[in-house]
Amino acid sequence: MEEKDIERIVRECLKELAPVKSVNLETAKLLIEGVEAEAARIGVKAVIAVSDEKGRPIAVHCMDGAYIGSFDIAINKTYTSVAFQMPTWKLAELAAPGGSLYGIQHTNEGKVVIFGGGEPLYNSDRMVGAIGVSGGSAEQDTYLGAYAKKIYEEKLSWK
Amino acid sequence: MEEKDIERIVRECLKELAPVKSVNLETAKLLIEGVEAEAARIGVKAVIAVSDEKGRPIAVHCMDGAYIGSFDIAINKTYTSVAFQMPTWKLAELAAPGGSLYGIQHTNEGKVVIFGGGEPLYNSDRMVGAIGVSGGSAEQDTYLGAYAKKIYEEKLSWK
Amino acid sequence: MEEKDIERIVRECLKELAPVKSVNLETAKLLIEGVEAEAARIGVKAVIAVSDEKGRPIAVHCMDGAYIGSFDIAINKTYTSVAFQMPTWKLAELAAPGGSLYGIQHTNEGKVVIFGGGEPLYNSDRMVGAIGVSGGSAEQDTYLGAYAKKIYEEKLSWK
Amino acid sequence: MEEKDIERIVRECLKELAPVKSVNLETAKLLIEGVEAEAARIGVKAVIAVSDEKGRPIAVHCMDGAYIGSFDIAINKTYTSVAFQMPTWKLAELAAPGGSLYGIQHTNEGKVVIFGGGEPLYNSDRMVGAIGVSGGSAEQDTYLGAYAKKIYEEKLSWK
Repeated sequence: MEEKDIERIVRECLKELAPVKSVNLETAKLLIEGVEAEAARIGVKAVIAVSDEKGRPIAVHCMDGAYIGSFDIAINKTYTSVAFQMPTWKLAELAAPGGSLYGIQHTNEGKVVIFGGGEPLYNSDRMVGAIGVSGGSAEQDTYLGAYAKKIYEEKLSWK
Repeated sequence: MEEKDIERIVRECLKELAPVKSVNLETAKLLIEGVEAEAARIGVKAVIAVSDEKGRPIAVHCMDGAYIGSFDIAINKTYTSVAFQMPTWKLAELAAPGGSLYGIQHTNEGKVVIFGGGEPLYNSDRMVGAIGVSGGSAEQDTYLGAYAKKIYEEKLSWK
Repeated sequence: MEEKDIERIVRECLKELAPVKSVNLETAKLLIEGVEAEAARIGVKAVIAVSDEKGRPIAVHCMDGAYIGSFDIAINKTYTSVAFQMPTWKLAELAAPGGSLYGIQHTNEGKVVIFGGGEPLYNSDRMVGAIGVSGGSAEQDTYLGAYAKKIYEEKLSWK
Repeated sequence: MEEKDIERIVRECLKELAPVKSVNLETAKLLIEGVEAEAARIGVKAVIAVSDEKGRPIAVHCMDGAYIGSFDIAINKTYTSVAFQMPTWKLAELAAPGGSLYGIQHTNEGKVVIFGGGEPLYNSDRMVGAIGVSGGSAEQDTYLGAYAKKIYEEKLSWK
């Protein structure tokens, strides 16, 4: 067995071991920029937030003219997404009257948001952060949240 | 009448007088460990909290991988249970649209939880604390809360 | 060189590469129990909290008779320790009148504590969580926080 | 020794054993009325609150013309008194710049009050509740808090 073979084997092993990277500022900025472009295209002035997997914010951008009230909501959508490990539109269903989590929006010091726009982000099946979008209608925010998730998984999760 | 008879009578009287013991840290830890084992068995990563009869926390454990959002909810389930002297699943019924306490979840600074998992704990008919479990589905949390209550009453209430 | 030798060498390398483990519930409980014993020895009824490296609580124990007010403070000491990556006694110096961070205690929604008892916990130079102790005098809390840090580094950091 | 003698002895013993009574509504009202009279005499329009030993309010009276802001403060003075088991004027000393608890007023969700007017109430050395007075100058509130404590200990603690 030659040295180059050994090197190859070791590199393979190391690759498998390499820890999944959490979202960092560089990735957060690329992600937010992608969502900004799409929000502009569909005519929404959004606040876009990215947090890590513990719900601690990494970056927040407020597009010109965005609702002042959206700042807290976008951040809280990232909190809600990681705190319950599901998109906010899904929690909305469970929190509706008759749902199994009806009333959850009153817990956690008002940080639980139960309309769409928040999505946990996954990298190789590990939750590594969340996106929160606020500023349009619930439908638009939900769309932009899902759009962000798609960008992340397709283009940014390997970073 | 002999001295030993007197002693016996006195001891009997004293026994009746002995105050019911509130939940203490030792009991809280035993109770939480019991619930942890059952939660693990049914595949739930739970946050489990025990408070005293005034809703002041005694101990809280977050099982590895439990929802971040469950910390506040588990503690608030103990608060809700003692604050209204009923299990949270029962308050859920009263707080549903059309129920006699519809809207109660908006009071008390966001500390009222209206889905299952919180149970007041009784010792000789006196409320001595509460358990709060959060992390599974509403059904799982309700089951684990009832399980905790059963453990407490059968094994720990005499402590 | 035979293949088994290569495997051995690779395994050794991998061991070094293995990611540092964050504090988990098992470790948190062992750490808290150690601090409980020392607090009892010096006559302090403490609340002891352990959080992860993002300030999310893992476990909290309130020793019988501990101050009610210590529950929030112990948890907030863990938050403060990881939020500013320093022990709370050190932040206390910076936050004193004339200090460079004078006034920092008014930020962060009242979660910043500026007296001793909070310590970040490190594992191989990486911050992996924090301890927060509250219940004695500032000196006692500071001592118990440092004691906890020592226990962690000497006995638990390899877990 | 006859049976009636035994009974008498046992009853005496039981009397000593009888658990110390916490403050109840009847006692709280008598206490507040006493403070109201004294406040009127010195020309203070006070809010007077009484809580139990866990800081849960029992009764609150707002004298005609009292500051609206005093409602929260009086209640929080009772919370502070039991949460740290000392009068608020004493905590004020420890919380002053250079004091060992400098900064404590920013913890516990803004419920810590560090000027006089709050006093824990003791019955046979056991803390059974607290009084909180707000509405006059710090000196007046401190005086009225101490006055309340004196009334309680001299006239009401046996109730």
